[in-house]
Amino acid sequence: MVRMNITHERISILGLGAMGRALAGALLEAGREVTVWNRTPGKAGDLVARGAREASSVEEAIKAGDLTVVCLLDDSSVRETLAPVAPKLDGRTLVDLTSGSVRQARELAGWLKGYGVRFLSGGIMAVPPTVGTEGAFILYSGARDLFDRVAPVLSPMARPHWVGEDPGFAALYDMAALSGMYGIAAGADHAVAMVHAEGGDVETFKREVLGLWLEQMLPFMVVGAEASETVLEDSNPGMQATGLETMLAASEEAGVPAELVGHLRASLWRMRHAATVA
Amino acid sequence: MVRMNITHERISILGLGAMGRALAGALLEAGREVTVWNRTPGKAGDLVARGAREASSVEEAIKAGDLTVVCLLDDSSVRETLAPVAPKLDGRTLVDLTSGSVRQARELAGWLKGYGVRFLSGGIMAVPPTVGTEGAFILYSGARDLFDRVAPVLSPMARPHWVGEDPGFAALYDMAALSGMYGIAAGADHAVAMVHAEGGDVETFKREVLGLWLEQMLPFMVVGAEASETVLEDSNPGMQATGLETMLAASEEAGVPAELVGHLRASLWRMRHAATVA
Ligand SMILES: NC(=O)c1ccc[n+]([C@@H]2O[C@H](COP(=O)([O-])OP(=O)(O)OC[C@H]3O[C@@H](n4cnc5c(N)ncnc54)[C@H](OP(=O)(O)O)[C@@H]3O)[C@@H](O)[C@H]2O)c1
Ligand SMILES: NC(=O)c1ccc[n+]([C@@H]2O[C@H](COP(=O)([O-])OP(=O)(O)OC[C@H]3O[C@@H](n4cnc5c(N)ncnc54)[C@H](OP(=O)(O)O)[C@@H]3O)[C@@H](O)[C@H]2O)c1
Repeated sequence: MVRMNITHERISILGLGAMGRALAGALLEAGREVTVWNRTPGKAGDLVARGAREASSVEEAIKAGDLTVVCLLDDSSVRETLAPVAPKLDGRTLVDLTSGSVRQARELAGWLKGYGVRFLSGGIMAVPPTVGTEGAFILYSGARDLFDRVAPVLSPMARPHWVGEDPGFAALYDMAALSGMYGIAAGADHAVAMVHAEGGDVETFKREVLGLWLEQMLPFMVVGAEASETVLEDSNPGMQATGLETMLAASEEAGVPAELVGHLRASLWRMRHAATVA
Repeated sequence: MVRMNITHERISILGLGAMGRALAGALLEAGREVTVWNRTPGKAGDLVARGAREASSVEEAIKAGDLTVVCLLDDSSVRETLAPVAPKLDGRTLVDLTSGSVRQARELAGWLKGYGVRFLSGGIMAVPPTVGTEGAFILYSGARDLFDRVAPVLSPMARPHWVGEDPGFAALYDMAALSGMYGIAAGADHAVAMVHAEGGDVETFKREVLGLWLEQMLPFMVVGAEASETVLEDSNPGMQATGLETMLAASEEAGVPAELVGHLRASLWRMRHAATVA
């Protein structure tokens, strides 16, 4: 089989939001041939200056590329954008990096398969400023051979990481990891709210305490994560429960709202239960 | 003023739970002279083998040290342990590393001051296995000159970090940071529950996705933490809200319990509100 050098594949990008622009920028930076399209015109400015071609329709964009990357707001914008051109997609390669739920990813894959599209569903494990930097990665799910072909083409955006044939798995791992991130955000907000409420110095606390502590604890929390409940090793559930109770008391003293604490009360109950039955 | 070389100060430790033992071990490792006491006898075994002296009463322990470190279960165990000997503590130096609330730390400081005790209140930012390792630190609050004296003596336990004269500040920063850690635990548990519920591979997910993603996002979450709500820079609240909504939908599809999600719904509401008024 004869095929062009993979890194010479032409890439089209649908969607020039903050993320689409970052992806296109990273590909241009690496010397890839990039065509871009966005629903609202006028967003391609600096990308064109850096060498991108701007297409004036979705169809034109898809035709200009050997491979199309979709990065729109959500699943329904993807459906809306692709529906009119779907009958013309037979044999085309499409990678959807729009965030969606597991079911949405599976249904989109099924729908596009019906039109003969070679499809990968992805999840971007980066934010625009970290695209193209070390640590950033993108999850892909779908046919392994298709992944093997597009991975080197798209690698300048972020390290490609395949997570399975099931087209829903990239979304699953993406959304699950995102829920973990919101847990950090919730915890960090809660922490800062306590310090603020008790008259502490929020900036000093963030810089000298919170970041260093969370960095130190993160690996333990990840390793210890369970579908049910985390109980640190090397610490008995009784001590853990007392520690959590003390934290909740401190939080109440500070008058900090109980949203996150609601979750933690349930954890406390389960730990006490574990301590009692142990 | 003539004083012994600081590193020759004798240290007494009250409490040989998992943490007290780790602290004593780190001090012995560094060649400090250590006396230990625990309510229930028989916990000092390997510490004695490594050079510690075991005291048979609280009073004996405190008299054997130039400096006493208290690390018991909670504030009430500290009160119970110190009350009988309090009248004999005049002029003694005491460092309490037991976790407690801000108010408890302030009240304990006031109570001990009444007995002429030189007192620092601390918060251990480590778990037993990280005591004495890089990254671990201990917060201290109280008189700065007292901190300057004890810091080099106690530094083998973990890097000493002073956070203010207010004796409640170590507890405040400790408890606030702990709430942040429970946020990570809650988020990581939630993430794992989703992957488990949808038939994903939990161990692969933890190792190849969750840890790397949370590590990458942690600094953003800490910098962006607010007493009210986190909205990432470089991302508009509308996209953030949609992302969170998608994650909540994925979570519901997976049938994962709504405890953490309860908090996130409130966040979502506030983001939508921010997007509307922006
Ligand atoms: N930003 C991040 O931190 C981040 C991180 C990981 C993943 N993601 C995901 O990446 C995707 C894009 O995010 P973003 O930050 O680029 O969002 P954004 O800045 O809000 O951009 C949204 C994009 O979607 C387009 N769009 C919205 N509705 C559309 C429709 N009905 N038809 C066609 N186009 C439509 C917009 O076009 P117009 O210009 O015409 O409105 C714009 O190009 C999202 O799924 C997001 O979850 C983002
Ligand atoms: N372990 C961690 O990960 C960690 C991390 C940071 C901070 N801390 C804090 O460090 C402190 C100690 O934790 P730990 O892990 O060592 O707990 P632990 O293993 O449960 O030990 C508890 C200690 O407190 C003593 N104690 C309990 N009630 C007492 C009372 N009424 N009078 C006298 N002594 C009493 C116990 O003595 P007996 O042996 O007689 O029961 C034991 O020495 C806690 O405040 C904890 O929050 C722990």
